[in-house]
Amino acid sequence: MRSGDQDEPADPAVLRDRFGTALQGFLAAQRVVLDRIGPDLAPVADAAERLVLRGGKRLRPAFAYWGWRAAGGADGDEIVTAEASLELLHAGALIHDDVMNASETRRGHPAAHRAFTAAHRDEAWHGDPAAFGTAAAILLGDLCLVWADAMLAASGLGPAALGRGRPTYDAMRTEVMAGQYLDVLEQASGGGSVERALRVARYKSATYTVERPLQLGAALAGDRPPLQAAFTGFGLPLGEAFQLRDDVLGVFGDPSATGKPAGDDLREGKRTVLIALADQHATAGQAALLRARLGDRGLDSGGIAALREVITATGALDEVESMIERRCADALRALTGTPMASQAEPALRRLAESATARTA
Amino acid sequence: MRSGDQDEPADPAVLRDRFGTALQGFLAAQRVVLDRIGPDLAPVADAAERLVLRGGKRLRPAFAYWGWRAAGGADGDEIVTAEASLELLHAGALIHDDVMNASETRRGHPAAHRAFTAAHRDEAWHGDPAAFGTAAAILLGDLCLVWADAMLAASGLGPAALGRGRPTYDAMRTEVMAGQYLDVLEQASGGGSVERALRVARYKSATYTVERPLQLGAALAGDRPPLQAAFTGFGLPLGEAFQLRDDVLGVFGDPSATGKPAGDDLREGKRTVLIALADQHATAGQAALLRARLGDRGLDSGGIAALREVITATGALDEVESMIERRCADALRALTGTPMASQAEPALRRLAESATARTA
Repeated sequence: MRSGDQDEPADPAVLRDRFGTALQGFLAAQRVVLDRIGPDLAPVADAAERLVLRGGKRLRPAFAYWGWRAAGGADGDEIVTAEASLELLHAGALIHDDVMNASETRRGHPAAHRAFTAAHRDEAWHGDPAAFGTAAAILLGDLCLVWADAMLAASGLGPAALGRGRPTYDAMRTEVMAGQYLDVLEQASGGGSVERALRVARYKSATYTVERPLQLGAALAGDRPPLQAAFTGFGLPLGEAFQLRDDVLGVFGDPSATGKPAGDDLREGKRTVLIALADQHATAGQAALLRARLGDRGLDSGGIAALREVITATGALDEVESMIERRCADALRALTGTPMASQAEPALRRLAESATARTA
Repeated sequence: MRSGDQDEPADPAVLRDRFGTALQGFLAAQRVVLDRIGPDLAPVADAAERLVLRGGKRLRPAFAYWGWRAAGGADGDEIVTAEASLELLHAGALIHDDVMNASETRRGHPAAHRAFTAAHRDEAWHGDPAAFGTAAAILLGDLCLVWADAMLAASGLGPAALGRGRPTYDAMRTEVMAGQYLDVLEQASGGGSVERALRVARYKSATYTVERPLQLGAALAGDRPPLQAAFTGFGLPLGEAFQLRDDVLGVFGDPSATGKPAGDDLREGKRTVLIALADQHATAGQAALLRARLGDRGLDSGGIAALREVITATGALDEVESMIERRCADALRALTGTPMASQAEPALRRLAESATARTA
């Protein structure tokens, strides 16, 4: 299972596979628990595996793993299992996010609530198929949230390490839920300034995806305040850049790469930094078009093209691209001169690139 | 804070207040965390406090506390805090349950998603008020789930105790979510046998409300296999009796005592043991009435009276009352002769009575 010698350069694909193997083992054990309660729970186990084992970049476990290594922690299956548990937390958040946004797809497949809705329809069951789909997905998300901390606790790391990681872990979970709430609130209130949109990005994504995982890894390995501070200097701007890239992909991304339909964020009326900037620079005509079409569930390819045109013509797209660039540079600068284990710095630089690449 | 001397008879109201105080302190600290993220998160903190501090019987913490005391654990603020955390888990489950059932009220006040829907309407925000209410309540429930294990971990109990409690805690959380899923599935599939309805009651309620809390308390205090077995013998039948009583109250209960509108379970089409029995014994005419009106969201007081009449006339109500009685007797018998700390047995007998009383 080990990726090799401590001094050998780590292969990101190998690390990803090890996270996948740990998740597979944990979910297989949960399937047995569910099956003991009743064989009709198999679709719940199936849905969890479909989402969690389908892949993705496993960014949060990777940042957490390199936080651990940077702080001098040795490679081992325990830390891989502990960090892989962040994918279950993320799965719970995604499943609930898709319910809240009434999203059709996730990672190129039907979102969990849509899959349960389809099952209800196929079986010609009683009641509203969509209500069943929503209920089942809420419970599946709850299970993933609960399994996340169960997997972390059962990782094999000792109680002292787990105790050191706790405050960061709890802060991270509270922040992502709070950020999600602020996101929902921002859409309801019709969106506001760039500053407000950046605050949402910070909590629902920047701390949760980069800063906190790094700090969690480092805390599990031992308390090193200077490293934790460097991780804030690296993690916050990089995390914001990650979310800004996600916002751009949500409007301009290729569906085959994002796993979401083209222009999905436009249809959902997401109040991102990109949109706040477009709104700020829009002419009266452009502003009217934004108001009229953003959040229109029936938006077709013509409507998407028109909105993309406004976002480009106002200069919002270029501005977000320079914000991403600036933040990436700030992040990388924060790494320079921070004492950490030898392999960690190149690994973190590579992760930064992967998290903000122009293709999903 | 202590309720008094170890040998003084424990006052249930004092214990309830101590759970309330622990929850109040924990939620006040979370309010500070949320406020640091943004003052617009205050409604989230408010909603959590409204539900969690409004009271209820605090049955799960009480069973867990007496599980600890029965196993020889001493009274202390740490164990009170640890067990009070079960109320946060329960709050998360209730908030999500109310979303899934589209319930209007909880504990006599608007359900969380209804309160957020009303806030959206009052502010004349953008988009669908109900969609906002659902999203906010899903996130509030997620926060409560996350806070539950954070509060347990921060209770002040040592890592060895917490480690012993883990397997029971994780089993309990998986079981309640799985039981809720089976409940949703049962309603979708149109309900079946008494046996199937009993299985739902077992997982969504019996293990979760009585058996697991007792076992959690005992595991935190130390490993005592004979006591754990006695707690299964006591907890499972009592937990089933508790759910059967809840089913009766859901149809015949006084709204001022249940905090739910009269006949709410009938309107929601809950496939309880009570309904399975009525269905089993119904004449063709009674069965037709059940089929036609059960789950009818527009059910008025006349419809409720007609369904109640069927449930009584088929003998289902009497049968459930004897099932409750039989299970209570079985539960109490399991306590007899089990060696446990002196105050625990009378406390558990009193809790059994409170959990299955004819008034909510």
